[in-house]
Amino acid sequence: MNIQEIIAKKRDKGELTREEIHYFITEYVAENITDYQAAALVMAIYLNGMTKEETTNLTLEMANSGEILDLSVFGKTVVDKHSTGGVGDKITIVLMPIIASLGIPVAKMSGRGLGFTGGTIDKLESIPGYNTVVEINKFIENVQKVGISVIGQTANLAPADKKLYALRDSISCVGSMPLIASSIMSKKIAAGAEKIVLDVTVGSGAFMKTKEDAIKISKMMKDIGTLANRETVCVLTNMDEPVGRAVGNTLEILETIQCLKGNMPEDIKEIISGIGAQIIKLAGEGNSLEENKRRILENIKNGRAYTKFLELVQIQGGDISYIENPEKFPKAKHIIPVYSEEEGYVEELNAEKVGVTSVHLGAGRVKKEDGIDHAVGIWLKKKIGDKVNKGDILAYIHANDEEKGKTAVEDLKQSYKIVKKPIEIEKYILDII
Amino acid sequence: MNIQEIIAKKRDKGELTREEIHYFITEYVAENITDYQAAALVMAIYLNGMTKEETTNLTLEMANSGEILDLSVFGKTVVDKHSTGGVGDKITIVLMPIIASLGIPVAKMSGRGLGFTGGTIDKLESIPGYNTVVEINKFIENVQKVGISVIGQTANLAPADKKLYALRDSISCVGSMPLIASSIMSKKIAAGAEKIVLDVTVGSGAFMKTKEDAIKISKMMKDIGTLANRETVCVLTNMDEPVGRAVGNTLEILETIQCLKGNMPEDIKEIISGIGAQIIKLAGEGNSLEENKRRILENIKNGRAYTKFLELVQIQGGDISYIENPEKFPKAKHIIPVYSEEEGYVEELNAEKVGVTSVHLGAGRVKKEDGIDHAVGIWLKKKIGDKVNKGDILAYIHANDEEKGKTAVEDLKQSYKIVKKPIEIEKYILDII
Repeated sequence: MNIQEIIAKKRDKGELTREEIHYFITEYVAENITDYQAAALVMAIYLNGMTKEETTNLTLEMANSGEILDLSVFGKTVVDKHSTGGVGDKITIVLMPIIASLGIPVAKMSGRGLGFTGGTIDKLESIPGYNTVVEINKFIENVQKVGISVIGQTANLAPADKKLYALRDSISCVGSMPLIASSIMSKKIAAGAEKIVLDVTVGSGAFMKTKEDAIKISKMMKDIGTLANRETVCVLTNMDEPVGRAVGNTLEILETIQCLKGNMPEDIKEIISGIGAQIIKLAGEGNSLEENKRRILENIKNGRAYTKFLELVQIQGGDISYIENPEKFPKAKHIIPVYSEEEGYVEELNAEKVGVTSVHLGAGRVKKEDGIDHAVGIWLKKKIGDKVNKGDILAYIHANDEEKGKTAVEDLKQSYKIVKKPIEIEKYILDII
Repeated sequence: MNIQEIIAKKRDKGELTREEIHYFITEYVAENITDYQAAALVMAIYLNGMTKEETTNLTLEMANSGEILDLSVFGKTVVDKHSTGGVGDKITIVLMPIIASLGIPVAKMSGRGLGFTGGTIDKLESIPGYNTVVEINKFIENVQKVGISVIGQTANLAPADKKLYALRDSISCVGSMPLIASSIMSKKIAAGAEKIVLDVTVGSGAFMKTKEDAIKISKMMKDIGTLANRETVCVLTNMDEPVGRAVGNTLEILETIQCLKGNMPEDIKEIISGIGAQIIKLAGEGNSLEENKRRILENIKNGRAYTKFLELVQIQGGDISYIENPEKFPKAKHIIPVYSEEEGYVEELNAEKVGVTSVHLGAGRVKKEDGIDHAVGIWLKKKIGDKVNKGDILAYIHANDEEKGKTAVEDLKQSYKIVKKPIEIEKYILDII
């Protein structure tokens, strides 16, 4: 077997065998296959696609390229949750403490932000002291102690996926369905969960711009889950506008605190109860989705979810005085209101544009190596469907650089489309697959 | 402009502009674009193709990536000749001294063999002393002195093509028409000839397996020639069986000597007179192809072509005593006859299989870095159409390693297909485009 033959086979629309995919992944990680050979193969996959079997085999080989976690020690079904990425997406940070507060163990590894989408780990790191780089033993121990731990992916989690993802990014091959699906599922399988709930985002602020594409990739990931013996449910959520009101790391933690104290925007409420209900069901803790939703909202009301969040922050080394006194969080130097120049109803609030504006403020990365500024971002006052008068505040820009702040004000105005007629608000959960 | 955008454009079947192709070539040669980014673009080109304009622009940019030779010093039109590669293809070495003997200057750079096809430079180097690595000034001077020089391509001749060709070879992207056409034409343009005759080989021993493909790539190269202001004629020649009787470096020089002394197999005679007549016409030295053919054969008969070959060898530093006494050439240790086990007529003599057998004997390279053994090869006694009796000698294997020789005997038998009915011989020149 050699890599030229494998490249030629995919180039000519052939179907790669498990052995060929195994050879490619192991030899690529061992650096016996060069980046340029991998790049040629990835482009051929991008253009000629992969069958269900090929995608599953690629997923399993990438998962097996590193350590596979064993979460059976908890004696309970662990359900992983993953989002395909979005703007203002703090669902994991709000939802997972609720799940843990219901007695379902949460052992979750999350990623960092790249491009216009944010990342859970960056957001958690805006809490002073919160340690996201933790040894596996300590991670397991934390879950055993308080029922929850949320950390960054370890270096040895699906290293083949890490290598291939960085390559895809530099050769314009990120947006390929079999490659996205296998990348996500390989990390989930390596992270050890028996069951998986995927939040598949759809719209301007997501990789999947249409519902058709989202359904297609959801089916692909469900198929991989089935073949890999990991039951998978996909919840399609609307990412035409950002989730909630905060975009930016500290700001999203502040919104999380509000949510866990019961002050929750409609979209976040619908999404966490919809996704949470599926997690509880997959964990074998309740078959009625309606009853599950009720329990989720109940644990917010009775404060148990908030308490669990404090326990999570504390066991990860975070300073809970910040959570208890949110005014302690460092603020951006300039907080600039964005005024509406029109009267009417918000018809569009383009999530991708808001995400890009937030990256330009310093809240996200353009390149992997970039640092981020936790304090900056955007707080949205008006969202889709809201009535707006001329001179109303649409949003606040939180900037540490005055010039960047001014640019952000103008850019943010472009994210809004205001029309005369009232708008019917779409659902936030579009489908369950 | 950045390479990711260029890759994405070709990935999505877009047409690259001259500026984008210029950016890619210059930045790739300057090593600001990585091999893996170039590999992704090359695979996208392989799969999505290139328009006539893109192919021409790629050609010109590759030609301009290094020095462009100025051959106007000769005061006469210089016509370059190039073959798309084959087995036993010594046409350049036989034909170019004939052309020079007619007073038409020959300033030719040739390549080495790779894969199952041989290379002119390797063959010439089997003449003791013949120096193929020569400074441009010396090359020009040689042509001025004796009317002919044949050397290897200089390092600075279309360096972008060299880099891309090596990359294509390692990522299974050699066989792409726009990439083959632009690679050949970029070297021809950089080598300075005003007019170009291309020997486009067709059949089992060529890159183009069918006449349709050969016509397609011929039209592509003619178009590039037109747009680059280099008149180009393509002569399609049959490469189903090897050209002539010798395959292997020294053996092909021995056959060349025989040819120039008038002992020429039918196929070589037809091909050199057909291609030669086009060269004379393009050089502006005679419009009648029939008259041109006659002059070619005449200069073999009268010995002028042979004398010109001696002058070429001598001015390149070669020892002409070997040409005058061919028995001086080192011989392989084992010369093994291959006997026919059947009676009938040769219907097939697969050029690719013969080429591969010759490479295994050591006459060619598997990898670019490999050395070669000049003495080994194959001398074919029976070719397509020939009558064969059981026990007749089909060919001689020239081997320096006895085991390899034995394997070659068996392999060579597989190259022959002998049938009961007489075979009608196809033409050797299939078309002129």
